[in-house]
Amino acid sequence: MNARVYLDHNATAPLRAEARMAMTAAMDLVGNPSSVHAEGRAAKALIERARAQVAAAFGAQGADVIFTSSATEAAALALAGRGLHGSEIEHDAVAAWVDCDLPVDKTGAVTVADPARSVLQVANSETGVIQIFPQGIVLSDMTQAFGKIPVAFNGSGCQMALISAHKLGGPKGVGALVVKRGTEIAAQIRGGGQEMGRRSGTENVIGIAGFGAAAEAAGRDLADGKWHQVEKLRNILESSIEDSAKETIFVGKSESRLPNTSCFISTGWKGETQVMAMDLAGFAISAGSACSSGKVRASRVLRAMGYDEDEASSAIRVSLGLETTEDDIMRFAEEWLKCRQKHRARAA
Amino acid sequence: MNARVYLDHNATAPLRAEARMAMTAAMDLVGNPSSVHAEGRAAKALIERARAQVAAAFGAQGADVIFTSSATEAAALALAGRGLHGSEIEHDAVAAWVDCDLPVDKTGAVTVADPARSVLQVANSETGVIQIFPQGIVLSDMTQAFGKIPVAFNGSGCQMALISAHKLGGPKGVGALVVKRGTEIAAQIRGGGQEMGRRSGTENVIGIAGFGAAAEAAGRDLADGKWHQVEKLRNILESSIEDSAKETIFVGKSESRLPNTSCFISTGWKGETQVMAMDLAGFAISAGSACSSGKVRASRVLRAMGYDEDEASSAIRVSLGLETTEDDIMRFAEEWLKCRQKHRARAA
Repeated sequence: MNARVYLDHNATAPLRAEARMAMTAAMDLVGNPSSVHAEGRAAKALIERARAQVAAAFGAQGADVIFTSSATEAAALALAGRGLHGSEIEHDAVAAWVDCDLPVDKTGAVTVADPARSVLQVANSETGVIQIFPQGIVLSDMTQAFGKIPVAFNGSGCQMALISAHKLGGPKGVGALVVKRGTEIAAQIRGGGQEMGRRSGTENVIGIAGFGAAAEAAGRDLADGKWHQVEKLRNILESSIEDSAKETIFVGKSESRLPNTSCFISTGWKGETQVMAMDLAGFAISAGSACSSGKVRASRVLRAMGYDEDEASSAIRVSLGLETTEDDIMRFAEEWLKCRQKHRARAA
Repeated sequence: MNARVYLDHNATAPLRAEARMAMTAAMDLVGNPSSVHAEGRAAKALIERARAQVAAAFGAQGADVIFTSSATEAAALALAGRGLHGSEIEHDAVAAWVDCDLPVDKTGAVTVADPARSVLQVANSETGVIQIFPQGIVLSDMTQAFGKIPVAFNGSGCQMALISAHKLGGPKGVGALVVKRGTEIAAQIRGGGQEMGRRSGTENVIGIAGFGAAAEAAGRDLADGKWHQVEKLRNILESSIEDSAKETIFVGKSESRLPNTSCFISTGWKGETQVMAMDLAGFAISAGSACSSGKVRASRVLRAMGYDEDEASSAIRVSLGLETTEDDIMRFAEEWLKCRQKHRARAA
C-alpha cells in the first residue's frame, strides 16, 4: 500500500525538523516570561530570540513583531473598527473587518484606488495569484507568501502585515502582526500587558520558539532556491493534467503565482466530490480555503474573479511542499485522471 | 552546587510528562482541523479528544469548552462590553473589563451583592485564599484552582469560567472559556468560524493536545490526594519561618487556601528585593502576580485586603508544586532566613 500524499500545504504545512527541535527544547523551560527570576528571564530570552528570527526572515528588522495566536487574531487586532477597504479575494479573517468593494479582474488582480484606506494580500491562498503591489497599503495579508516567495516587510511599503507560523513549517496556533514602529495598536486582549501592552496573556513560549526556528529555516530554503524545484513539479502536474484533460481551466496560470499552488476547474465535477475521491485514493487536497470548516459552497475567490457558479464550485486546489516528490505528483495526476474518467462515466 | 528550586508554580507550572508526550505525538499530525481529508479529520479528532479530557477533568460535561490562547483571551471574549462588577483582587485580565467595586475584607473574602451582575475568582493567585461561593455568578476565574483543589464547573452555579493549561502542567499559550450550553458569546476573533463560530483561527493543535493530557493527569493526581502532601510541605515552610521570624505576617493563613500557596509579609523588606536575593540564592519565587511584567509596585490584592502600602510592598509569594520536596522547602527557609538576617544587618 502506498503512503498518503499530502498536497494541501496552503492549508497547513508539516512541522519542520528545526521547529520540532526548538519546541522540544522549549518544553524544558519552566519559567513564565513575565517573571523576574532566572527561569522567567530564560523564557523571555527565548521569545525575544524567536522575535529576532521572525523579523530577520521577514525583512522586518526595526519593525514591531507582535506575537498572536494566529494571523486571524492579528487581523482582528489590526482591523477591527478601522473601516478599511479590501476585495472579495481576501481571506475570511480579513474580509470580516473590511468593506469588500475593491474590483477584481479575471486574472485575479485587485485594483486599489486608495492604498491609504485599503488592505491587499500578497498572494491568494486558493489560486496562488500574486498582486502587483502599490505603495502605502495599510495592511497586507502575507500569510501565504511568507516563506514561499521573497517578501520583505520593510520593502513592502505597508504599514502592517499578517503572518502565520504554520504556513511555513511552524506550529499551528502562532501568528504575528508586524507593524512599522510607532503604529498605534489598541489592545483587544488586556491584562498583564505582554507584547508591549498590545496583546496580553502569558505567551505561547513553545509555539513561539517553533515559529522562530521555522521562519529561519524557511528563509534559508528560500535563499537556497528550493521553491524553484517545487515550481517545476507544479508545472509538471499541470502539464500532465492538461495533456489528458484539455478542457481543464488552470486559474491564474498566465499570472505571477506562488510556486507551489495549482487551482484548476473541471466544470460539472464538484470540488468537494473531487476532494473526497482523492482523499479515498490517498491524496490530501482541498476545494477552496481550509478555514471554511465544513461549509460546501462555491469559491468566493473564483466568483469574485468572474468565474460562474458552476465553475467556482468545480475547482480544487493542489498545493505542494518542499517534501513533495515527482513520484507524488505523477501518482496524483494518474489517480485524478482515473477518478475523472469514473465521474464522466457516471455522469454520461 | 545545588540545583535551582522552582517555587513559583502559581506563575506557571513545569510541563507534565503526559503533556509532553501528547504534544510530541501531535507534532506528527500535519492536517488543518478544518480540512475535510483524512489528515484534517485526524487533527480535528485530537482537538475533540482534548476538549473531552478538559471537560471531564473540569466537571464540565455538557458545557461548551471554547479553546483560546490564554485565560486572558477568554476573559476578553467573555467580559468585554458586559459591564459586570468584580473586586480589586481579580487578576488584571479580569479587572480590565469589570467595575472593581465589590468590597474585600482583611481575610480576602469578597462580598457579592448581585451575583447575576458579578464575577468572582475561586482562588487568589497571590494569597491562595478561596472564596465562599454564592450561586449564580456570571463568570469565575478558576485558573488557579483548577487542578489544585476539586472544582467542578457544573456544580459551581456559574454561567462561565476561565481556565488555563499552563497552571496545571500544560503548555503556556492555551486556555479556555467554559460556558453553559446556549450562552451567547459574540466572537471577537472572526474569520474561519472555528470553535463553533465563537473564536476563529487555525487551532493550536499541539498545545491543545497538551492541555487535554495535562488536565487528565492533573485530575488523577488530585483524586490521588497528591496535593495533601504539598499542603504539608507548605505548612512546614510556614512553621519554619514563623519559628525564626515571629513578626512575619502570613496572609490568609487562617482561611481556606490553595494547598500550595504561601504569601507572607516582612514589613520593611521590599518583595522585589526578596525575589532578587532568593533568585541569586537559587530559588524562583515571586512578589505578586507574574503577569505584571517588570512593574515594581505594591500588591493590588494586599492593598484591597486592607494591608498598608509598606506591608503590600513587602510580600512574597512562594507557590509549591507536585515535584517540590521537603529538602527544597528546608533549604528555602534556611536561605530566606539568612537573607533576612543580612537585610536586617544592612538596615540596622
